[in-house]
This record gives sequence, C-alpha cells and structure tokens, in this order.
Amino acid sequence: MNYVRNAWYAASWACDIAAEKLLGIRILNDPIVIWRNAAGALTAFEDRCIHRLAPLSLGRCEGEKLRCMYHGLLYDRTGRVVDIPGQEKNRIPDTLRVRTYPVVERHGCVWVWMGNAAADESLIPPVIDLDQPAYANYFSAQGQMDFAAEGFLVSDNLLDLSHLSFLHAESFDDLVSQAWAREPPKFTKRERSVRTEQWLRSQPFGGGSKPGERVDTYTRTDFYVPGVLVIMDRGYPVGTADTLNGQEPDPGQPAYSISGHLVTPMTSRSTRYFFWAAFHRDYDPSIHDHDAVMTYAQKGFNEDKKMIEAQQQILDSTPGWRFIPTRNDRGVLFYNQILEKLVREESSQVNPSSSS
Amino acid sequence: MNYVRNAWYAASWACDIAAEKLLGIRILNDPIVIWRNAAGALTAFEDRCIHRLAPLSLGRCEGEKLRCMYHGLLYDRTGRVVDIPGQEKNRIPDTLRVRTYPVVERHGCVWVWMGNAAADESLIPPVIDLDQPAYANYFSAQGQMDFAAEGFLVSDNLLDLSHLSFLHAESFDDLVSQAWAREPPKFTKRERSVRTEQWLRSQPFGGGSKPGERVDTYTRTDFYVPGVLVIMDRGYPVGTADTLNGQEPDPGQPAYSISGHLVTPMTSRSTRYFFWAAFHRDYDPSIHDHDAVMTYAQKGFNEDKKMIEAQQQILDSTPGWRFIPTRNDRGVLFYNQILEKLVREESSQVNPSSSS
Amino acid sequence: MNYVRNAWYAASWACDIAAEKLLGIRILNDPIVIWRNAAGALTAFEDRCIHRLAPLSLGRCEGEKLRCMYHGLLYDRTGRVVDIPGQEKNRIPDTLRVRTYPVVERHGCVWVWMGNAAADESLIPPVIDLDQPAYANYFSAQGQMDFAAEGFLVSDNLLDLSHLSFLHAESFDDLVSQAWAREPPKFTKRERSVRTEQWLRSQPFGGGSKPGERVDTYTRTDFYVPGVLVIMDRGYPVGTADTLNGQEPDPGQPAYSISGHLVTPMTSRSTRYFFWAAFHRDYDPSIHDHDAVMTYAQKGFNEDKKMIEAQQQILDSTPGWRFIPTRNDRGVLFYNQILEKLVREESSQVNPSSSS
Repeated sequence: MNYVRNAWYAASWACDIAAEKLLGIRILNDPIVIWRNAAGALTAFEDRCIHRLAPLSLGRCEGEKLRCMYHGLLYDRTGRVVDIPGQEKNRIPDTLRVRTYPVVERHGCVWVWMGNAAADESLIPPVIDLDQPAYANYFSAQGQMDFAAEGFLVSDNLLDLSHLSFLHAESFDDLVSQAWAREPPKFTKRERSVRTEQWLRSQPFGGGSKPGERVDTYTRTDFYVPGVLVIMDRGYPVGTADTLNGQEPDPGQPAYSISGHLVTPMTSRSTRYFFWAAFHRDYDPSIHDHDAVMTYAQKGFNEDKKMIEAQQQILDSTPGWRFIPTRNDRGVLFYNQILEKLVREESSQVNPSSSS
Repeated sequence: MNYVRNAWYAASWACDIAAEKLLGIRILNDPIVIWRNAAGALTAFEDRCIHRLAPLSLGRCEGEKLRCMYHGLLYDRTGRVVDIPGQEKNRIPDTLRVRTYPVVERHGCVWVWMGNAAADESLIPPVIDLDQPAYANYFSAQGQMDFAAEGFLVSDNLLDLSHLSFLHAESFDDLVSQAWAREPPKFTKRERSVRTEQWLRSQPFGGGSKPGERVDTYTRTDFYVPGVLVIMDRGYPVGTADTLNGQEPDPGQPAYSISGHLVTPMTSRSTRYFFWAAFHRDYDPSIHDHDAVMTYAQKGFNEDKKMIEAQQQILDSTPGWRFIPTRNDRGVLFYNQILEKLVREESSQVNPSSSS
Repeated sequence: MNYVRNAWYAASWACDIAAEKLLGIRILNDPIVIWRNAAGALTAFEDRCIHRLAPLSLGRCEGEKLRCMYHGLLYDRTGRVVDIPGQEKNRIPDTLRVRTYPVVERHGCVWVWMGNAAADESLIPPVIDLDQPAYANYFSAQGQMDFAAEGFLVSDNLLDLSHLSFLHAESFDDLVSQAWAREPPKFTKRERSVRTEQWLRSQPFGGGSKPGERVDTYTRTDFYVPGVLVIMDRGYPVGTADTLNGQEPDPGQPAYSISGHLVTPMTSRSTRYFFWAAFHRDYDPSIHDHDAVMTYAQKGFNEDKKMIEAQQQILDSTPGWRFIPTRNDRGVLFYNQILEKLVREESSQVNPSSSS
C-alpha cells in the first residue's frame, strides 16, 4: 500500500466506543486498539501486548488503565506497563511500552494519526459536525461497511461520481439520471483535497425539490486526504444553471443535504467505509425518514461493494494491470498527484517511516 | 497449468445464456464474458473493461452492444469502445478494445477458442447434439458442478472408469459391479482423443436391460481434447461378449444411452464440469424419469467431488509428488501424450502464447 | 514448525475409532490414516495411496486390510499393496508401499510415533489411564477442539496457568481467583517434562472443598514432551500451605481431581486439543455432573480458542515478532529448552529427518 501516514484516518463513529469500552481495528495494516476510559477520554495503542502479542482489544478497561486479559499486564494511558501479575513492581522495566497513536474525537468520529511526524489537528478533514444544530435533527443515515478490496479502489469510486448513472442506475432511478456522467464537472486541485462543482440540469429529484417538480441541482464535492468525501447539494429553478453559466449560485448559503463518506484502508485487501447523510432544518423534514434513507443508501453501497470487490479480483489475476483514464477521471488523477507528493515528502523526512 | 490453448472449451450450456444476458467465467485463468445480443448471436470478450478493469460480466447488453455498468463505456461486438460517457466520440482512440475470443454454439453448448491460432471449428468435439431427435425427447439429465481442484484431476477421473467399482460402489450399486475394474478395456490412442471399448459381462443393469434380466454391456468411451468424454452403451444377451471375442457388436447402430462429460479448467484450483445423459427413443422411455436420473447422477458426482478435492489437498501438501500408474491408467497415459504433443507444437509456433 | 519427531503424539480418543473404521488426521503436517481392523488392532499409514495420492482415509477396512476407494488398491497392515484391480497379482512390485507409523493405544488414547528412530513405548506420556477404577466411574469430561493456530501457542497457554486469573476470570469465577497469577508456582525442569507445584491459599472452591468452605489447594502440573499436560489437585484446611512452607502435603496420596490436556500440532496453522477430567471415587461424586463439567470446560476452552487464534493473527502480521517473558513464563522457558535440546539431538542423528 502506498498511502500517506502523516494524516488522520477515521477509525470509528464516536458513539460506537462507549466509556470503558474497546475497539480493535487495522489501519494501514497496523493493528490498533482504541479505548475510552471511565472519564470519557480516548487512547489508541498498538493492539499487541508486549508480553506475547495478544490483542489488547480483547482486554478490559480498568478506570484510567487498560489490562490485557490473557495474562493480566496492565498499561497506563502512555502505553507503559505498570503491573505484571506475579512480578514485583520494581522489577518492571520502564522500557516496557506499547506504541501509542494520537487520537482525536471530532465531527462525531474518532480519528487516528498514523505517522511519525507531530500530529497536526488542523489536518482533520472538515467534515460537518454531526452535532451541528442545523442538520443534527434531520440526520438521516449513519453506518459503515467493509470492502474486501484495497482502499484506493473505494476512494477512486468516490472521486468519479459518473458511476451513479450506471452502477446505481436502478437503485437510484428516481434520483440520478444520465446527467452525472454526461454533465461535465469542474475539477479543482487544492492543497490536500480535490473539489468538483457540477450542475445537473432539470432533475426529477434532489436538492430539496418538491414531488413532481424539476430542478437544476448544484452539487459540490470535496475529497480530502487521506480519504474523506463531503457532498453538498441544493436545488434551483430549472434554467438557473444556464443563467449562471455553470458558476456557483449562492456562495455561503447552507446546503440542502450533506453526506460524508470516509474511507479507511485496513489491510492491503480490506477497507472500512463510514457514511452518513443529513438534511438542513430549513427544509421540510417529513420526507426524510431515517430507515428509508438507510435502506436506500445500503442498496447503493451494496452495488459499490459488489463491483469493487469483483474489480479487485480481476486486478489480482492480471499481472501488470493498468487503468486507462477517461475525462471523468480528472478527480482521480488530481487526487493521486496530491497523494504522491505527500508520500514523497513523507519518505524524504528524517523520521524513519513506520513498519507497515 | 499446462493445457492446450488452441482448442474449444465448453463455457456454458447454450440454454443458460438467454438473449441480452451475460455470463462470466474463467477459462485457463482468463476472465471471459460471453453475451448474447438481442438477435441471439454470441460474443466472447476478455472480462475486463479497458478503463478500470471492472468485470464486463456485471455489465448490460444494449441491443448489439455491451455496456460496462461501472462508468458506462460501451463496446461493439468487435471489442471496440464506441462510447465513453462525458467524452466526445471523436476523442475515443480506435485502439481502445478488449480482446475477443472465437465463440460457437454447438451441441447445445457454448464453446470458446482460447488460443492465438485461427479458430478451427472442425476441432469442436463431436458431442451428440442435444437437439438430435432420436435422443432429445428422452434426454434425462443436464447439469454442472464446480470442483475445487485442478482440471487434470477431473479429466483423469473420467479417463479411468475403473473407479466406478469403488468410488461409486454404493451409489451405483444396482448398476456397476466389480466388472468396471476387472474387465480390461481396450485403449486406442487417436489424433486428438482416446477411445476405450469394454465388455462388462452378465450385468444386472445397464444398456437397456429389462428389470431382472442380465446382459453383456458393450461400452465405448471417447475422451477428446481438451476435456470432453462421451460414453455410449448398449446391452446384449449374456454370452455375446465371449462369442464376439471382445469385438464391437454392431458398428453403426445407435447407442442405448449416451452421456457427455465436459471438463473446463477455470483457474489452477477450480474446474467446471458439465454433464448430461440421454436415451434412444427406440427404448421404452418410461423408466427414465428426469428427476430420478439427476438425483442418481448428482450423488455419484458428489462422490467424485469429495474424492478429487481431497486428492488436491494431499497434492498441495506433498512437494514433488508423483503418481504410479496401473494398468487401468493407460487411457490417462495416452491422453497425456496427446496433450503434451499439442502443447509442444503450440509453444513452438510463431504466434506468441497468451498470458495464462 | 520446529517440533520433536521422535515422540508420541495423541491422534484420537481410542473410543473414536471403532472396529473397521478409519480416521484421517494431520500430525506435524504429515497426512495420516489410522484404522482399526476387524480384530481391533490399530495401524497407521501415510494417508496417500501410492497410485494417485488419493486419501486412504476415504477408504474401507476389509478385515485385516485397507482398500483405497478411488480405484481399489488394497494394502496389508505392513503398508504393502497386495491387489490392484485389473492387474495380475504377479505384476505388483513388492516395492509398492505406503509409509507406516508406529501406533499404540494407551490411556484411552491413540498415540502415533512420528520419527525415524525406533519407537520407544516408555516415552508415552504417563497420562492416567481412563480405565483406572479409582477415577473411571467419576469421569466427567472428555472432548476435543481444533485451534486455527500453531501448536506452540496452545502449549504455551497450558504452560502458564496464570492466564486462568484473567482469560477465564468470568467463566471460572467460582473456581479461580487472582491466586493463579499472584501465588508463585515452583517450576522444576525434568528430563522430558516441566513440573509446577503451587499452593492457592484460602480458595472458595476446588480440590474437593464442600460448598461454603474455603481450602488451601495444592496443585501439581506436569507438561510432558511433546505436548501433554496433566493437572492434579487436592484441598486442605486453610493454613496448611503456610504450615508446610509451600512443600507437597502428602506424597503418594491420590489426587482429588485429575485433568489431561493433549496438544497435537496438525499443520503450521492448526492444532488439535484433547481434554478430559476425572474425580477420585473416594469423594462424593454427586456434585460432578458430566454435562455440567463439559459445559463449564467448553466455555473456558472457547475463551482460549478466541484468544489464541487472535494472537496467531497478530503474529502473522508482525514480521520479526518476539515475546518478552515474565516471571510466570518460567515453565515455557524450561519446556522450550527441553524441546530445543531434543530437536538438536534428533537432527544430529544419522537417520535422515522426515519431510515435514
């Protein structure tokens, strides 16, 4: 895997790690345990007890500490072993420690910094906060799904939404039209993200349209390093797109709907995908039934899963495979350029790169 | 895998690919999609979209064309890309194509030519046509089954029918006797096939015998490159075998029953097996109940599957394994000689051999 | 795998191989078939027919002989092929044989000698005989379980019982206390075994205590090459441990309970584990309900399985992993020293080492 390590990876929904609970996950192949102490604070360790490499994620939180439940070694939050049952405390070397990872809770999500450089919280992708009042009560879908495929195949899927017109033609048939593939988005390469802006003209659905009404939908997507896509959209009277000549309609106005898609490479053949969708409170919330949105989203994500896992199997049996980019791959190309630059910078730094 | 590529491999029962439907299969490790257009004609492509290697077998037939349902690339029957959504048609290079494979429908089966030499339809194994009137109405079993084993283990199984006396001793106990293993067949090596002729004396069942009657059964098998076995049998009054001194009884007379067994290596550890059985209309068809014959056949094939998959596991854990042939392996030896000669000739041809 | 081969490995409970039945198992990666003839005698063969390497464990016992049920080759008890169907007996070379392994039934268990040196029955670990009258009628649990992990991880688990205080804290909560981890056992390295002696002071349960009573429990464990643990315990009035200053209380007296734990490495990632428990007839047997003991044991063994299999997965993704021993690992260290010495001696012997 060729991924940037000095970055924040989504490890879990924050609500999925309760006080005194543990969660084991692999990120960039590192086994990691994230645990929340009795006071609510998060800690992330390498998920290997120093003794016999038993997973600490099968351990137990004891107040401010974490105990391995194989032979009972106890760790404080700095990763240091502070008790070995049957052994005098003064005979525990101070060097017995597990690696710790910087961990932060933000936007309703738990983020882990995988690199050796100092963790920089300003680099956490600006996903909308799930507690933000304008959207929170209209929050409609939240879930996660694992793909038996390498992370970049999932990222690439999200970087080219023209696939909505084909892969999801049936499940999203009241939402998408051929427009996703036919109307060219404008791609912009930024420091650590790729932005697309796209008008979908005269759509039967989307952006807050009323039933039976057609709208021009303006959609903006931002795909941030190391794998976070935020999609916002808003509908306008038919004709607006042409009137504005494809420009953004009303900068600064809140989006009708926002969705987030977080891609976390676990191993070289497994990826965790977190997703959520929310609607602005200024719109009639009656049409946004949580279960309906989830059912709808899951159907589409299962189509992605089937295609991407099949694609992975083809790649695995095709030595020296290569892709041939189309016009709609510009977002993928921009993102790869950003990533390659970051990986290059990272590998040239003095800090030795980690083992994965 | 060391298999001949300039040959026709069975890919599917013809009836299993309806108009505007697709079928994905691996043959000799190549991922292949076979599709039938609206007019009924078959086409076979490499099952990898040129764009991002998504499987075309998850695509959609559109009249005379095939569309990849990931990002919508459209292919004509020659394998050329004729539409890339979002991209002007005049900006599609003429060189964007997938590999095509010669494909033919014959004998109720779909055959694919895997090699680089010109496809030669005269080499399609002469399996009896499933539409042939003398047998069609009395057609009793048709199915398929996958083995988690390399193809040659399945072929070898069919090339030595002495295993009927042991592996199928219980499930075929009203049919087979020790005769399959004890009565020596006559083996003949032909250009691209091995023939066996075998009398089974005084059998309680088979070849059109009446209940309670014993018969001498004359069985002829032909195993054709690259993996098609046709078995024909007919019963005669007890004593006929000795009277004829083991010679063929009545050349040119139709067989009482015919069965076909088609072996298609998919990957180095998976094989698809197609089978069918039919009876001649001149015989009382009342005893040939389709479901009963299928149940009976499936039981036997499951015994083959269990043994062959276990054999594969033993081979995989035995470095440098070798077989020790017995007298009944003469068919296997003849077939291997034919195959090795063809593979040798193929690799010495000017055409570069394909990648699998 | 780095295991001693000149040793007896537990292959099965004796009662699990009935007359004329076969059992296939891998031991140290060798596929082995063990079969009992009509007269009750056991034979162990390499589980590969010489003909096409079909597993003989799918074969059939015929009186004193074993038949491969693929093509019918027949073996006598020395491993020699005595019949090949369809082939004259005088055309069967005398050299056609499968490897045989010394096999012995003792202590209710079937043992196989894996090495090339002469089999030495005195090396069968002195597990208590399941037919021994003092315990037989009070025999309470017998079972087996497979671990998807290398054998040494299961042996190490049994060599350090301090894990009872943590891994089994909940399931054994009426039995174990922190004492298993906190009270230091005395470790003794012997010729082919490691002994621990351990007093657990003032226990609420164990060693034949009455309900509500507390006892000092004296526990002795012996872990024998190549993977057999025998645990014996007996309860005494509280204070006995201190009075005796940690010495053995009454040498020669029968234990209250005995349990056996037999570890057989199958492949490099699979291990079979046999277990049993029995109680002495001098104690009130009413509390020893077979089903209750089994349920209780299975719960604990499932905890071991979950932890050990997770540990294996961590090791597999940690190149160059190493363990850091604690005080309680002294048994593991002693056992590894014994094993390494035996492996070293074995590899320096003239007999060529076997292929696994």
